Amino acid sequence: MMLSSQLRRRALLASAVAGALLFASGACATPVKNVIILIPDGNHTSVQTLARWYRGAPLAVDEMGAGTMSTDMVNSVITGSAAAATAQSTSYKTTVRFLGIGPRPDDALSTYQLPEGIPAVGDEARWNWLAYRPMATVLEGAQQVGKATGLISTSRITHATPAGYAVHVDDRGKDNEIMEQLVYQGLDVVFGGGGRHLLPESEGGRRTDGENLAEVLRERGYQLPETADELAALSSGRAWGMFASSHMMPDLDRRYRLSQGEPVTEPSLAEMTAKAIELLSQHPDGFFLVVEASQVDWAGHATDPIYHLQDFLAFDDAVRVALEFAKQDGETLLLGAPDHNTGAMTIGNWSTSRTYTGITVEELLDPLRGMKVTSGYLAAQLPDEPDAAAIKATVADYWGIALSDEDVAEIQTEAEAVGYTYAIAKVVSANHTVFGWTTHGHTGEDVTLWSYGPMAPVGQLDNTELGLAVASAFDLNLDLGDPQGLNQALFVDAEEAFPGQTRTDLSDPENPVLEISHWRLPANKDQMQMMRFGRTCQLDGLVVYAPEANEGLGRWFIPRKAVELTRNPRLWFTEECRR
Amino acid sequence: MMLSSQLRRRALLASAVAGALLFASGACATPVKNVIILIPDGNHTSVQTLARWYRGAPLAVDEMGAGTMSTDMVNSVITGSAAAATAQSTSYKTTVRFLGIGPRPDDALSTYQLPEGIPAVGDEARWNWLAYRPMATVLEGAQQVGKATGLISTSRITHATPAGYAVHVDDRGKDNEIMEQLVYQGLDVVFGGGGRHLLPESEGGRRTDGENLAEVLRERGYQLPETADELAALSSGRAWGMFASSHMMPDLDRRYRLSQGEPVTEPSLAEMTAKAIELLSQHPDGFFLVVEASQVDWAGHATDPIYHLQDFLAFDDAVRVALEFAKQDGETLLLGAPDHNTGAMTIGNWSTSRTYTGITVEELLDPLRGMKVTSGYLAAQLPDEPDAAAIKATVADYWGIALSDEDVAEIQTEAEAVGYTYAIAKVVSANHTVFGWTTHGHTGEDVTLWSYGPMAPVGQLDNTELGLAVASAFDLNLDLGDPQGLNQALFVDAEEAFPGQTRTDLSDPENPVLEISHWRLPANKDQMQMMRFGRTCQLDGLVVYAPEANEGLGRWFIPRKAVELTRNPRLWFTEECRR
Repeated sequence: MMLSSQLRRRALLASAVAGALLFASGACATPVKNVIILIPDGNHTSVQTLARWYRGAPLAVDEMGAGTMSTDMVNSVITGSAAAATAQSTSYKTTVRFLGIGPRPDDALSTYQLPEGIPAVGDEARWNWLAYRPMATVLEGAQQVGKATGLISTSRITHATPAGYAVHVDDRGKDNEIMEQLVYQGLDVVFGGGGRHLLPESEGGRRTDGENLAEVLRERGYQLPETADELAALSSGRAWGMFASSHMMPDLDRRYRLSQGEPVTEPSLAEMTAKAIELLSQHPDGFFLVVEASQVDWAGHATDPIYHLQDFLAFDDAVRVALEFAKQDGETLLLGAPDHNTGAMTIGNWSTSRTYTGITVEELLDPLRGMKVTSGYLAAQLPDEPDAAAIKATVADYWGIALSDEDVAEIQTEAEAVGYTYAIAKVVSANHTVFGWTTHGHTGEDVTLWSYGPMAPVGQLDNTELGLAVASAFDLNLDLGDPQGLNQALFVDAEEAFPGQTRTDLSDPENPVLEISHWRLPANKDQMQMMRFGRTCQLDGLVVYAPEANEGLGRWFIPRKAVELTRNPRLWFTEECRR
Repeated sequence: MMLSSQLRRRALLASAVAGALLFASGACATPVKNVIILIPDGNHTSVQTLARWYRGAPLAVDEMGAGTMSTDMVNSVITGSAAAATAQSTSYKTTVRFLGIGPRPDDALSTYQLPEGIPAVGDEARWNWLAYRPMATVLEGAQQVGKATGLISTSRITHATPAGYAVHVDDRGKDNEIMEQLVYQGLDVVFGGGGRHLLPESEGGRRTDGENLAEVLRERGYQLPETADELAALSSGRAWGMFASSHMMPDLDRRYRLSQGEPVTEPSLAEMTAKAIELLSQHPDGFFLVVEASQVDWAGHATDPIYHLQDFLAFDDAVRVALEFAKQDGETLLLGAPDHNTGAMTIGNWSTSRTYTGITVEELLDPLRGMKVTSGYLAAQLPDEPDAAAIKATVADYWGIALSDEDVAEIQTEAEAVGYTYAIAKVVSANHTVFGWTTHGHTGEDVTLWSYGPMAPVGQLDNTELGLAVASAFDLNLDLGDPQGLNQALFVDAEEAFPGQTRTDLSDPENPVLEISHWRLPANKDQMQMMRFGRTCQLDGLVVYAPEANEGLGRWFIPRKAVELTRNPRLWFTEECRR
């Protein structure tokens, strides 16, 4: 549908002409020094409303209501998280599972229209130009204008949403490749899970490409905290904190384990956010930070109301930290939105069809107050092939719910299809709470938009317009084909710049290298080697190999700086280069 | 919970101190001459997103995204429509089914706190003061400051949402009493359904109190159009258009009947809105108008996606009319929001749990494009006790859906509990569309807020703050106990003003009359009779009898003007009085 480009035009028009509507305080614009993006993955207003009731007081996000946001992607009216993150970070929609790259043509929606600004004529040529092409993110743009940058998540940091702000990879499942790009992206602060993708298998990690990225980080001067205490001890400088080998814990389970005296060392999302802001705000030219509460979404997939609620509350605590900083600072723009809805919780279900006008606060909250852990933690306490007694006892112990025989029968049936984690959450929600759910997947309705601070956008935005809002705030040019823009500065098509001279070295299939004459540029890094001088230069962006681009023939994209390095040998003896 | 009063304080503070956040264009405030309230009853962002896809272009409401709104009422975390309308119109929450009156104490939520400003000490006395007491609406306030006023709905105009802006009745089901208050409320434009409540039973109406309110309207100079053509012919003056005896038709069914050559004379919501604005905008001092698309909610109760969608599109057409007027006018504030969510439609359901990242526009829309009528219309075409063949044939004819034997079996089972209208919609939604639903009732999550124009509020508001936004725009004082405020001007406790002198004449139980000495004030009217002079004066507000107030002893509330009339006999010979 024409929506994306229409909205884009409308947004640009609105920001240029009628600032009052799009920007709450546009009439008296303050410069924006910092931008913080706040994403609770996968939810809608229902969990915000519930969290407010649960807390008995307004939330931090309640101070930031700003409208709604549409979320569709190129190949589905319901987005995946990778495409959603790409839309937000690049201001262009893409295909499912794609991170920071252009969409593929073969499964695009019939209504999808290619964006304007592609320097090619005719649909086929324009698709060929765009498909799988890396697209500059606002994080990369922030770096280009001198901002410090940071990423925080409670999942592996390589997961779709955080990664979509900083990498260019054709499948969100390629954690190793994503981690390599993240490491070489030059971020200032990275906090979350996923440490296993830094280390080779020989050192207990998951990397199969022979790289030890923890070593690279140390060489580049990063501090590497691994516990909440080590995080708290940081006072300045760059930091890369991996607090879990894979994902971090659900916030509720983290606190439950602590209450049981277990040696839990993971920090909270709010603690990571506070420390990131403390470190990044020391940067004189400002910063760009993305904070994702990753698991609100997983709770939606599981249709687990307590997990959904508690991870949203943990998100709101992090928002509070950011909001208090922004209020003090006065030059910080906060932008927030779920990337989509998941599970689609509602306050009310089939059991309340006739009773909804008499639902007390106790009916709403009491079932939740008895739940000490997430359904995943609970299910992990069940024996293999649990009988009714085991299910009843475990649910009673951990959730304070007395299951009936009918409940257990329903759980056993559901569990055959989706496992106990999902089955218990679904049946308990339906039969013992007022919460409705409609799916184990994502859903496609517009989500909530939150904003605060100078140039805070207001309205019904498309998710691509979240990227445009950051671009406006930092004065970034995200136009795809504009020679003055970020995309052409960061992603020069190597074959176009060096016709007939590029060669792909796949002798090590996990470490592809672009060869141009006597220069070598390894994929997923910010490096360029000149064999003749035996020197390596650090680039200002990533070298991206897109094997599926150009109709499957592959393409390499390199920063414009790499092109300049081929043309001016003196540059090889500046401080960014070494033997 | 403390929410209501906290939000109230926050809103007042925000409007006074930090205008930028609450009011998008607060920095450069324009005077507000007109306010239009736009309410699609019962829905959430899902139908807005769907309507945008269906239309293939941005909606009018897409230009008005402004945040979200909480909707709980005094006795339930999920509101009913009467209490929701009361919250919006008076800025105070109330009990289920109550219209424009204070809540009752016995079923209030444990977290509910009485509002500030009640002139009594101690909870019991404060409850006794507030319970069942009429509370001034912003429509009444608009009248007091000289604005013309209008109400539009596609239900009976006596239905909860429109009525909640203009009447003070302790049960939304009392259509006759509500209609009487509406007629004597002095509105300038009323368009919708419900004509049967104007006429006595002897003339084909439903009134049992002997009144002929159509006659009263004619005496008071109203034009009484009954068809779209008669509506179109209006060019100025007051108008009271009842286009259906009870509710108007679902918009889809209206258009289907027209396409079948049936003699349909009902106007669309957009036509009613355009005419109301045409008439009201002739008023030199501005106007206040409420437009309700009543049946989006009923579609949600039925879990009928085509009805939900089409009545929302009809709503958006009406919004377009208002928005274009507001853009031209420059002094018109538009405020919109659903009063709550209903049915809780999502784009995605259990059938898309694993496939959601590949839902095409055709999968989303094609099932809807085959639906020619609402499920209610369809079900009405079924024979009594329909067999499988009849159900299959009717659903194929009117909805273009080929039901399986399993579908029909599900429908038959569901229909036993909820009837065919709901059963067919539910089973078709689940098995032949991507739409999920969680209930036949309302749900309690925050809904979308829309606004446009000068002093347009932005943020996460409570529904009571919608009333505060109108109050700010028109400079109305809604404080309950303030002698300078609207409430004390419109609703003086008669027994307090005339201790020991009031008497309730219930000799005609359907027409209670307050007697004070030689004055008589009939309930639900704007009239006061002086027996001695044989004269009747028109008041500037309603006389309200609250039989349940004062712990069941009853109370009468009269406009302050009535008190003045008892003190100054000369007033009985002004033009508002007659023999």
